[in-house]
Amino acid sequence: MLNKRKIVNDPVYGFINIPYPILYDLIEHRYFQRLRRIQQLGLTNYVYPGANHTRFQHGLGALYLMEQAIAVLRLKGEVITEEESEGVMIAILLHDIGHGPYSHALEHSIVPDVSHELLSLLFMKELNRQFDGQLNIAIEIFQNQYHKKFLNQLVSSQLDMDRLDYLRRDSFFTGVTEGIVGSDRIIKMLTVENDELVVEEKGIYSIEQFLVARRLMYWQVYLHKTVLSAENLLVNTLKRVKQLSAMGQQVFTTPYLAFFLNPPLEISHYINSPDADECKLLLDNFALLEDNDIMVSAKVWAEHPDRTLSILSSNLISRKLYKIEIQHDTFPLELISAHKERVQQNLQVSGSDLDYFVFTGVISNNAYKTNDDRIKILLKSGKIVDITEASDMLDQSVLAKTVKKHFLCYPKGGGW
Amino acid sequence: MLNKRKIVNDPVYGFINIPYPILYDLIEHRYFQRLRRIQQLGLTNYVYPGANHTRFQHGLGALYLMEQAIAVLRLKGEVITEEESEGVMIAILLHDIGHGPYSHALEHSIVPDVSHELLSLLFMKELNRQFDGQLNIAIEIFQNQYHKKFLNQLVSSQLDMDRLDYLRRDSFFTGVTEGIVGSDRIIKMLTVENDELVVEEKGIYSIEQFLVARRLMYWQVYLHKTVLSAENLLVNTLKRVKQLSAMGQQVFTTPYLAFFLNPPLEISHYINSPDADECKLLLDNFALLEDNDIMVSAKVWAEHPDRTLSILSSNLISRKLYKIEIQHDTFPLELISAHKERVQQNLQVSGSDLDYFVFTGVISNNAYKTNDDRIKILLKSGKIVDITEASDMLDQSVLAKTVKKHFLCYPKGGGW
Amino acid sequence: MLNKRKIVNDPVYGFINIPYPILYDLIEHRYFQRLRRIQQLGLTNYVYPGANHTRFQHGLGALYLMEQAIAVLRLKGEVITEEESEGVMIAILLHDIGHGPYSHALEHSIVPDVSHELLSLLFMKELNRQFDGQLNIAIEIFQNQYHKKFLNQLVSSQLDMDRLDYLRRDSFFTGVTEGIVGSDRIIKMLTVENDELVVEEKGIYSIEQFLVARRLMYWQVYLHKTVLSAENLLVNTLKRVKQLSAMGQQVFTTPYLAFFLNPPLEISHYINSPDADECKLLLDNFALLEDNDIMVSAKVWAEHPDRTLSILSSNLISRKLYKIEIQHDTFPLELISAHKERVQQNLQVSGSDLDYFVFTGVISNNAYKTNDDRIKILLKSGKIVDITEASDMLDQSVLAKTVKKHFLCYPKGGGW
Amino acid sequence: MLNKRKIVNDPVYGFINIPYPILYDLIEHRYFQRLRRIQQLGLTNYVYPGANHTRFQHGLGALYLMEQAIAVLRLKGEVITEEESEGVMIAILLHDIGHGPYSHALEHSIVPDVSHELLSLLFMKELNRQFDGQLNIAIEIFQNQYHKKFLNQLVSSQLDMDRLDYLRRDSFFTGVTEGIVGSDRIIKMLTVENDELVVEEKGIYSIEQFLVARRLMYWQVYLHKTVLSAENLLVNTLKRVKQLSAMGQQVFTTPYLAFFLNPPLEISHYINSPDADECKLLLDNFALLEDNDIMVSAKVWAEHPDRTLSILSSNLISRKLYKIEIQHDTFPLELISAHKERVQQNLQVSGSDLDYFVFTGVISNNAYKTNDDRIKILLKSGKIVDITEASDMLDQSVLAKTVKKHFLCYPKGGGW
Repeated sequence: MLNKRKIVNDPVYGFINIPYPILYDLIEHRYFQRLRRIQQLGLTNYVYPGANHTRFQHGLGALYLMEQAIAVLRLKGEVITEEESEGVMIAILLHDIGHGPYSHALEHSIVPDVSHELLSLLFMKELNRQFDGQLNIAIEIFQNQYHKKFLNQLVSSQLDMDRLDYLRRDSFFTGVTEGIVGSDRIIKMLTVENDELVVEEKGIYSIEQFLVARRLMYWQVYLHKTVLSAENLLVNTLKRVKQLSAMGQQVFTTPYLAFFLNPPLEISHYINSPDADECKLLLDNFALLEDNDIMVSAKVWAEHPDRTLSILSSNLISRKLYKIEIQHDTFPLELISAHKERVQQNLQVSGSDLDYFVFTGVISNNAYKTNDDRIKILLKSGKIVDITEASDMLDQSVLAKTVKKHFLCYPKGGGW
Repeated sequence: MLNKRKIVNDPVYGFINIPYPILYDLIEHRYFQRLRRIQQLGLTNYVYPGANHTRFQHGLGALYLMEQAIAVLRLKGEVITEEESEGVMIAILLHDIGHGPYSHALEHSIVPDVSHELLSLLFMKELNRQFDGQLNIAIEIFQNQYHKKFLNQLVSSQLDMDRLDYLRRDSFFTGVTEGIVGSDRIIKMLTVENDELVVEEKGIYSIEQFLVARRLMYWQVYLHKTVLSAENLLVNTLKRVKQLSAMGQQVFTTPYLAFFLNPPLEISHYINSPDADECKLLLDNFALLEDNDIMVSAKVWAEHPDRTLSILSSNLISRKLYKIEIQHDTFPLELISAHKERVQQNLQVSGSDLDYFVFTGVISNNAYKTNDDRIKILLKSGKIVDITEASDMLDQSVLAKTVKKHFLCYPKGGGW
Repeated sequence: MLNKRKIVNDPVYGFINIPYPILYDLIEHRYFQRLRRIQQLGLTNYVYPGANHTRFQHGLGALYLMEQAIAVLRLKGEVITEEESEGVMIAILLHDIGHGPYSHALEHSIVPDVSHELLSLLFMKELNRQFDGQLNIAIEIFQNQYHKKFLNQLVSSQLDMDRLDYLRRDSFFTGVTEGIVGSDRIIKMLTVENDELVVEEKGIYSIEQFLVARRLMYWQVYLHKTVLSAENLLVNTLKRVKQLSAMGQQVFTTPYLAFFLNPPLEISHYINSPDADECKLLLDNFALLEDNDIMVSAKVWAEHPDRTLSILSSNLISRKLYKIEIQHDTFPLELISAHKERVQQNLQVSGSDLDYFVFTGVISNNAYKTNDDRIKILLKSGKIVDITEASDMLDQSVLAKTVKKHFLCYPKGGGW
Repeated sequence: MLNKRKIVNDPVYGFINIPYPILYDLIEHRYFQRLRRIQQLGLTNYVYPGANHTRFQHGLGALYLMEQAIAVLRLKGEVITEEESEGVMIAILLHDIGHGPYSHALEHSIVPDVSHELLSLLFMKELNRQFDGQLNIAIEIFQNQYHKKFLNQLVSSQLDMDRLDYLRRDSFFTGVTEGIVGSDRIIKMLTVENDELVVEEKGIYSIEQFLVARRLMYWQVYLHKTVLSAENLLVNTLKRVKQLSAMGQQVFTTPYLAFFLNPPLEISHYINSPDADECKLLLDNFALLEDNDIMVSAKVWAEHPDRTLSILSSNLISRKLYKIEIQHDTFPLELISAHKERVQQNLQVSGSDLDYFVFTGVISNNAYKTNDDRIKILLKSGKIVDITEASDMLDQSVLAKTVKKHFLCYPKGGGW
């Protein structure tokens, strides 16, 4: 259907084509449309005001890169049928459809037992039902059950189109331009060897740069201390809501947030139900949960009689964040106690409620692992080696080292 | 206070400095922080998915350009004191602070009697009260009561920093790159003559390009037919809510939207009250009204028993927009009737409710006017003339001609 | 031949593919390689130091756009065979191969009777001979003798790939960013109707912007007064060399410039000779004439005993340019005489030699003509109209008006 | 002098101001103007066709960054007087003025005994003479004899403005966008501690990215195998010219190249002469030696009776480069002999002349050294440490390791 051919403007890549009608239908579906109202980076815009891009944009961007990758691999002689091409594009388009609002925070508070990966799969299956099996191959690829393994690697691996897009997109919208990844060049150097996605030898330097740019983005953006502070403020706010709710207190929520705060039945019930309609009920509710539900609720909570909740949520709304300290060692207990004492006096909060205001935690970057999922280089000799072996610079022991840091949060200044 | 010196990352300009502590305090104020959750272009992201930038970003961007402009004018010998520099920067930072969510739509439905310009002024006055008169000069400049007229022109005129920023920013985030305005070059060519902001003669071509890029942005973005369709869907949804509410029906709204849907007293009462606290009450409520209030409410309305409201709002959420036709002439009444008949059958809606589904309207671009607010060119001869006189290309009669077009909206396909 | 597949890095577009082996062979040919040493904009880098891009880059860029255009047209159902695709790509790649160094200046001085268009054709024919007829279709298209007329329009018309590339490329390298043309969007909106290249109606605003950006580039870059001054200095230098040489004086030139300064036979003899080898002799010599021949010679001329030549060329090398005035009216003869008198005293030059130092001229922009070569818009109604008819803004009388200006050049300050 | 204020367009940074009149005068001087005709990256445009930027542009770019750096340091409270500001800007503007055409190649062939650093200093001294001592401070800074050591570090150190500009500029014009260095961010994080240029702790990730981007640029651009091949072809061509000339054979050269091929007196004589006019004679000649002298001469050499010279230079002109192989180990002598035998047969060249066609060499990257010139990080604790100590990722042993590779060049295919 030619009238379903569509071109979308994208500030990052220019124009994005939607090559198959089914892709267009999926984008039009309300399950996907909701991603327009879910920001890719949550509260990161509290630090980088430009970071308002959505998961909708990221889905389209990953689709764009997938189209490039398929064209490159075909040009190098790899056979990819039209069905496979469509399937792998559907898989990448929908790979993040299971993300909820402020995913990271939500998964640490209200819905701890529902991973976005699982939800993505459930959404795909439901969409497959609605579209009469047109997503069969996509789902096989997504679950790595398709016989051509490299198609799954294009969707989910160290060099998948997901990662290439989000790193580039996040650096674009945050304005951290030196985090730019040469996605074009990397894709041009991909090839398939023994059903495995590998990089041609001359791509070594691009891969090195990719790994370092990723690292830069981690510390400069994803684990930026002020972003951490904001996310922890949101997590604590949501935890308090859940706690109050469990204690039987009335707490305002928008209807769809309410479903997850007090689900009629266990969430796992819906997920595991043999009745597709029960799962659909869960998905339909989840599909209405957006960033705006959290933020509207927080504005109402700011006037809640519970002192802890009102302080947390009004600060969240006004961007009055915790002071955060980060260091390699753990923080001494006396320091934590001293902060708590100060808060107790200043904010008239006490007991275990103080943990909402003064707390420690641990962060670690997503280091390059050398066990299972690796970036493979195809040497001119025909040998395939890991990037850490092929590179002069990347020392495996350094690269694979997970850097772990401790942080301490407490209210700024005279007690907020 | 050096510790208030702050640098913000911006994808458009790179780094933005916050040169005065008062600017930093104003940005931190919750009145300004709310702009983080108000998108600059409302529903335009339904057409250009990248257009998620906020009024917060625009405020900072206009501030950045103002800093450039002041530096340029000072270099050319124009005396601008530190107080004036601070004042004009405050004025540009806050010039749009009175915008509510989806301003355009809101002003056509729920709060028709409150202009954002007036609200911006009220916010400034309240902030001036809170900051002990530090905004005095800014308010004078904003109201064009300051004795140096060109300072007001930097804030509000055909070539103000507001316009230069939003055109450039909107083209950046929509991805309509050819709408880029040479803001750098234009600012470099600004000068002051007889207390009036003028452009040096060699800037003529840049101004021509500016006027045409603006025009392109109007038709390609601001008045894009699908954007119009989406905005009208929102306007009609809100109108229906107001109508139902006026008829005494229960309609869910978030608390702050409720204040404006059914204000305790007339809005004008708060505005005109001699008691500053009454006005503050209005502002405090307005300051909590954000994009998220509209979208969350719409999701709830989608299940409202009123058929018209539920259809409109569920379509709004799922981006199922009106089909829209645009033409130079009015649409024949028979055509409109035919569409209404079809809708009546398909959607089981009747009577005056049909006007929510089938309707016409008029749009017109913001043409360059030659009466009062003009772009002045300083010729090398010392003479000052209007750009339409200085330019070989820009025919005044063409440029000043307001183009008016008619549009017709109706549900797509088999009746939505 | 897969090993001839090649990807070239381009700062403007990213990666450029060379899709056919014959294209690769042509690029490798020394006739084309010489374009690496011929700058696209001649002495424009005297004003815009970034403008050092070459005709080699432009050829590749136009090829890139052609590949895009063919893909778009095919997607819209236009049949373009592989032979035609290859042919039209060859034609655009080679369309400027006949340019010599500082073409504009050279055509006004040393080789006034040889147009670059004719030379491009001769080069193509000779290459066709060397490549056994592989350029047959390309030559037919280039000469507009091929039965599908729109293929020629892609190479040479108001919206050809030549123009789209050079406008974008020139604005990129000069840094005049607001001259950027939305080549992507324009190409996406091209279609073929009745064997004619037309633009879809929704592309009107892009075309308006294109015409204005082009206009901006003319006055801001191509006809920039300092560029004009530099070019006239070069023209006069070359004219003086030719004059001295005609008078029998010894003037140094590099060997290949010598061939054209004093050709063994009339240039027209080689061009019109029925013996292909005679023409090849001309081409082989021309193919060795590069920017460096002019600049090296000028450095030597700076020490020539002829006072006029040495002044002109040493100033050319050191970028000591004429002062230039531009106005709508002609310059009064007395003014010219006064300048000449001053020069006569200061530089000890007299008689007709003074014309090398003080002179007037006329420039005019390349306006949009409405007679033959027009930009056609395909209205939704199916009607095809000229852009000046379809556009609200572009007044035909204004757009088609050739703006003519007079300039006066004379040595700066105390006489150079 | 206000009329000497000047703004230059730059594709990389937008607008570049020339803040002091003396800078403007130096730029106008023919010693500096010649840099317009000396490309920054020599023959690199044989691989990256966009890399035609000149040393003139680089000088202005480094000046721009210096202006930024001074503003940042002053804002942080570092006292930099106007004289020092002017001095350090002159020093960075002129730091590369001693570069000749294809410096690298020239220094390996015709003028092996003249380093560009020494020539830069001689040019500065001569200009200081001409400008009556206005360059005194600049020269002191350049020679690291000025009492504020950090000013010299801004001109010449691991993080000097030279390096920051050329890395960014080279990545821009080659199109290797992922080599982009966050020069803005790095400069924002510079500070001075104990008269030493250091980087604030939060800049660690930017420095890591800088070091890796630099590394990428080395292998992807500066040491690209095809660039190496081209440069070696040029070196061999020039060596052959020198050899023939030494043997008394007539070889065409442009006049200024002739001066250096057969200098009237030893070059060292001019350099060390107590008579400034003798040194000036050398500089005046050197100042006329540009890229064009090499290329014009090469075109003439292509027809020289010496077979070796004509083959080398005609291949240079037509970009018919050596095949080059790179590996970690040395190449076996038998392989080299085999290639030579083949060349002897195919090209009829013999004896030691074969070394011009088949040869090996060694390359190594410019690793980060940890002995003297180091990047220092100012920790929040106040301690200053080396970046390799401050960084989790950068292993000193890896980073400081000079990677050495061997290459082998020989004619392609059937013997050229």
